Amino acid sequence: MSATDEVILLDLKFSPFGLRVRIALKEKGIAYDYREEDLSNKSSLLLEMNPVHKVIPVLIHNGRPICESLVIVEYIDEVWNDKSPLLPSDPYNRSHARFWADYINKKIYTLATKLWKTKGDAHAEAKKELISSFKLLEAELGDKPYFGGKTFGIPDIALIPFYSWFYTLEKFGNLSMNDEFPKLVTWGERCMKRESVSTSLPNQNETHDFILGLRKKLGIID
Amino acid sequence: MSATDEVILLDLKFSPFGLRVRIALKEKGIAYDYREEDLSNKSSLLLEMNPVHKVIPVLIHNGRPICESLVIVEYIDEVWNDKSPLLPSDPYNRSHARFWADYINKKIYTLATKLWKTKGDAHAEAKKELISSFKLLEAELGDKPYFGGKTFGIPDIALIPFYSWFYTLEKFGNLSMNDEFPKLVTWGERCMKRESVSTSLPNQNETHDFILGLRKKLGIID
Repeated sequence: MSATDEVILLDLKFSPFGLRVRIALKEKGIAYDYREEDLSNKSSLLLEMNPVHKVIPVLIHNGRPICESLVIVEYIDEVWNDKSPLLPSDPYNRSHARFWADYINKKIYTLATKLWKTKGDAHAEAKKELISSFKLLEAELGDKPYFGGKTFGIPDIALIPFYSWFYTLEKFGNLSMNDEFPKLVTWGERCMKRESVSTSLPNQNETHDFILGLRKKLGIID
Repeated sequence: MSATDEVILLDLKFSPFGLRVRIALKEKGIAYDYREEDLSNKSSLLLEMNPVHKVIPVLIHNGRPICESLVIVEYIDEVWNDKSPLLPSDPYNRSHARFWADYINKKIYTLATKLWKTKGDAHAEAKKELISSFKLLEAELGDKPYFGGKTFGIPDIALIPFYSWFYTLEKFGNLSMNDEFPKLVTWGERCMKRESVSTSLPNQNETHDFILGLRKKLGIID
């Protein structure tokens, strides 16, 4: 890629999907123009660049949009392929990495959001399912430093934004992440030693306050 | 890949997800052992090979499982990369192909199934959303022979299994696919000229009868 590359990211500070893209860009050392969107008044650029879903994140590379966080991460990995590979080179290991990134993508946001958005039976159901998903991830991680083994890769990028939600999940789920998922907690701490992650993720208290604010806005008060 | 490759597919005849894998294997000319599953009595092999989701399709290549239809199609494309590329080589075009395959994956099965499973307001809502999704796909296809341009690729593979549902959608949606989506119909006919597609897809009447049977089983009778 040439030195004149123009890279723009349409995003929201607390978005776990946007965070995936910011972390991938930092892993690759790509400078970019960050533009915070206002979801109650979406920019005409966002509507023009993602007319199908009308959501962030959108990466605009030399004027052309790429949408959907995992599609963007694979794009970044393929374009800036000179350092920090985010997918393994072996096809079987690639499919394994994609499978887990897809699993995380389908489950965690939906269940974690349900946990703080609902009460009663729906809340209990979300808690049960979220614990079951984290148990699967804890087992898949096992004693490896990262999901793919020794290298930080796409399943790590898919999941790590939710590390900033851990305190929120403990509060609203009435559980101890450390007791239930000690390997995921250690993995989160390990990822936080990477500059790409530590300089991107909001801290856990800040995220908790943000979600408390959202709950009040939605009229969910205990 | 060596001549001693063992390729097994756990599948269901009418599954649009399984059909994607069968079409990709045929595009590549890969011989495989097809095993029809009974969903009311899943094989121990299926439960062992896909312990996370416990669903078909599962491709087992030399004893190792690959799950999730689009992950499998990318795997097939990467392992058997000597003919019929299913993804473009340019990163931007690849991301565009992945975006649309993902869009189809998220929308069409869910909406089409709702159309024949529900009545009243839920049915009307599903019909409206399905038409809106097909309109987007009709516009994206435009006057190109395939979604990616001149080459049959991953968005085509994601969508073509639903061509066998077109008659069913007309019957339960009370609409004419030809009047509403003439380009998608022509595209479907074009894909059906490929041996990989025509020898895989159940015909539209057979699919309609199968879904009628499912409706009766579920107690949905007009």
